[in-house]
Amino acid sequence: MTTPALGRPTIDRETCVALDAADPLSRIRSRFSLPDGVVYLDGNSLGALPRDTAAHVQRVITEEWGTGLIRSWNDAGWFAKPQTVGDLVAPLIGAGPGQVVLGDSTSSSIFQATVAAARLRPGRRVIVAERGSFPTDLYVLESVQELLGGGRPLERRLIADDGPTLDDVLDEDVAVVLLTHVDYRTGRMHDMAEVTRRIHAVGAVVVWDLCHSVGAVPVDLVGADADFAVGCTYKYLNGGPGSPSFIWVAEQHQADARPALTGWHGHAKPFDFTVDYAPASGVERFRVGTPQLLSMSALEVSLRLWAEVDLGEIREKSLCLTELFISLVDARLTPRWGVEVVTPREPARRGSQVSLRVGSGYEIMQALIERGVIGDFRAPDLIRFGFTPLYTSYADVWDAVDTLESVLDGEVWREPRFARRGTVT
Amino acid sequence: MTTPALGRPTIDRETCVALDAADPLSRIRSRFSLPDGVVYLDGNSLGALPRDTAAHVQRVITEEWGTGLIRSWNDAGWFAKPQTVGDLVAPLIGAGPGQVVLGDSTSSSIFQATVAAARLRPGRRVIVAERGSFPTDLYVLESVQELLGGGRPLERRLIADDGPTLDDVLDEDVAVVLLTHVDYRTGRMHDMAEVTRRIHAVGAVVVWDLCHSVGAVPVDLVGADADFAVGCTYKYLNGGPGSPSFIWVAEQHQADARPALTGWHGHAKPFDFTVDYAPASGVERFRVGTPQLLSMSALEVSLRLWAEVDLGEIREKSLCLTELFISLVDARLTPRWGVEVVTPREPARRGSQVSLRVGSGYEIMQALIERGVIGDFRAPDLIRFGFTPLYTSYADVWDAVDTLESVLDGEVWREPRFARRGTVT
Repeated sequence: MTTPALGRPTIDRETCVALDAADPLSRIRSRFSLPDGVVYLDGNSLGALPRDTAAHVQRVITEEWGTGLIRSWNDAGWFAKPQTVGDLVAPLIGAGPGQVVLGDSTSSSIFQATVAAARLRPGRRVIVAERGSFPTDLYVLESVQELLGGGRPLERRLIADDGPTLDDVLDEDVAVVLLTHVDYRTGRMHDMAEVTRRIHAVGAVVVWDLCHSVGAVPVDLVGADADFAVGCTYKYLNGGPGSPSFIWVAEQHQADARPALTGWHGHAKPFDFTVDYAPASGVERFRVGTPQLLSMSALEVSLRLWAEVDLGEIREKSLCLTELFISLVDARLTPRWGVEVVTPREPARRGSQVSLRVGSGYEIMQALIERGVIGDFRAPDLIRFGFTPLYTSYADVWDAVDTLESVLDGEVWREPRFARRGTVT
Repeated sequence: MTTPALGRPTIDRETCVALDAADPLSRIRSRFSLPDGVVYLDGNSLGALPRDTAAHVQRVITEEWGTGLIRSWNDAGWFAKPQTVGDLVAPLIGAGPGQVVLGDSTSSSIFQATVAAARLRPGRRVIVAERGSFPTDLYVLESVQELLGGGRPLERRLIADDGPTLDDVLDEDVAVVLLTHVDYRTGRMHDMAEVTRRIHAVGAVVVWDLCHSVGAVPVDLVGADADFAVGCTYKYLNGGPGSPSFIWVAEQHQADARPALTGWHGHAKPFDFTVDYAPASGVERFRVGTPQLLSMSALEVSLRLWAEVDLGEIREKSLCLTELFISLVDARLTPRWGVEVVTPREPARRGSQVSLRVGSGYEIMQALIERGVIGDFRAPDLIRFGFTPLYTSYADVWDAVDTLESVLDGEVWREPRFARRGTVT
């Protein structure tokens, strides 16, 4: 096929179908329940449903809860689940067993991690964060600044991809730097090891937000000598809507780290029912209260899929998918409609999503969704497509661009039913 | 039947069966899936499984998540669930719509509520709590004392049923009093309206922990003029293991209350993705991050059961069940084994559980559980039986005491397999 405007060839759909046939990961796609007629490119917001999930959760409900009742806290291993399921996350982020524990939500885990991180540098009064981070990171930090400030809030310094840079703001007043590994809007990825090194050079502690990287790109927290990390499991890890967050604490900090939410599940001896708080010895001290077992059970079954795949293969396919998408956009959309690819083109700086800047992005995305291509919109002007190597096919990529071209071409997004009402990450 | 040791008649099993036949609530028992051969008296720790739950959660997984995917955040009302499901809790605690929102765990909600409560009294430096409260309340408070202390932790004053009393410690330095409505060990119930009045008399704010009262006893937060309340939904509300907590904020405090966990789901305009935090206008500001939808969906279906029952009927049956249990213990167990009823005998001071003080309580409970009578043990010496009017029968009560008598009589609890290893609330 040839794009007439350019006179140069682009890949055709048949080639994409052939790439899928040759793809070693295509066997995994059948392990997901994907609705007919949908090209799902929003797995970076809510991952698709693994086929094994429903039956597993059903068994937990009817057997473990219904029949086992209270006995399942011991007999079915419920009490230890935040650690045992956390151990399934560990290999995806370059962490060892006993270093990860599940939390409630990412927001709650960011609170836990940033308070503990700041307490490791008690004399310092500055927290660095990113203006472009997912907003909850900043909202939570506002509270941390106030609560740890002792009457005068800690200072916040914001950096951004277009400045101020990290080097502009780093100095020996900085206690904590909270960074998102892969930017939720643009898909820009930090060099974790290099950035961590610069943060450590001024004696500060880093907290990595892995929401948009875990399960999508290689993460090596121990190799990068990172301090804390938090992440989300309902995006690339397919744990289901609102599945629990996780928190990783480097081994060297576990004995000194002091969480803010000192609930009984993080107590050294929760069943002694003592009056005074004493933290558990390891990362378990970051547990809070009774975990939401049904949501956790869905996550557990989705995490078991990862034992069947190679993370190098995931990254390779992810880059092929995003590369294909970018090249199709370049060839078919940019010349005629001025669509701008805002995601970095260098593979090393890119996560597993591609975002396009385009006017009327909200309406365009609504029209796309109506045609079965599901991505999402991020204010003010980005449409975002997530590529999840476990189940996204090359044909999906082709179909998405083809549908987007037809939406732009026919100006169907101008129809009143696509007018803005709201959207959700 | 006659108890030989006393020579006086006690109620017999046939009478209990007849009471069940006449019980208007017995129709509800069939709505629960209870395992055969089990007398379940631990619904105050983990409620039994409603029959509708599994199918509902299955539908949420396969249809709302699997097919609806990200669209369900709007189309299936997911985003509003912490409020809409909270509105189902409201009538059980004497609250109006828009006053309750679901949280993560009780511990997390206690943190949210006590920080917000203390911030309403910024000049005061004392928090009052109960030595006998469930330990997580005190563990969380330790953190609140430090975080709000501004370098010097807030002072904690502990009260207890055997003193110091509330009146001993209340003065105008007290900012917040955190009280558990029904004591988790003894089942003792506070007079909420009267105690709230005394707390307000010194200008302090009260936070009620309703974990062991919601769904078991009448609660009228608005009528008692209370300030904040938190509670658990996996006990008498049957929401499933670790189902989300709830938080209630009196309308007069909603505009001024400042939560500590300032996540994006509690933001005034979460989808504007602004850099600065601004709290939502109502109780929604106590939301934190993305809620765990699958656990919440199980809770939603269990809460719908309450529309079919009258809360006065619940309380009446609860008192009959606990009265029957106490009288059978008095007649059959106390004279021969010195078993002591520690739960108040006055109905107005009793929740829906009865606790017995007995040596070797742990081992006795293990032997009971092996015989299909499930209650629990609370250190150091209490065995605890919860009576859940939705599904506990009078015959259950009779069978429990009868089995306990046989365990004591045969001294079967001395067998080595019942030796202590651990237990869970």
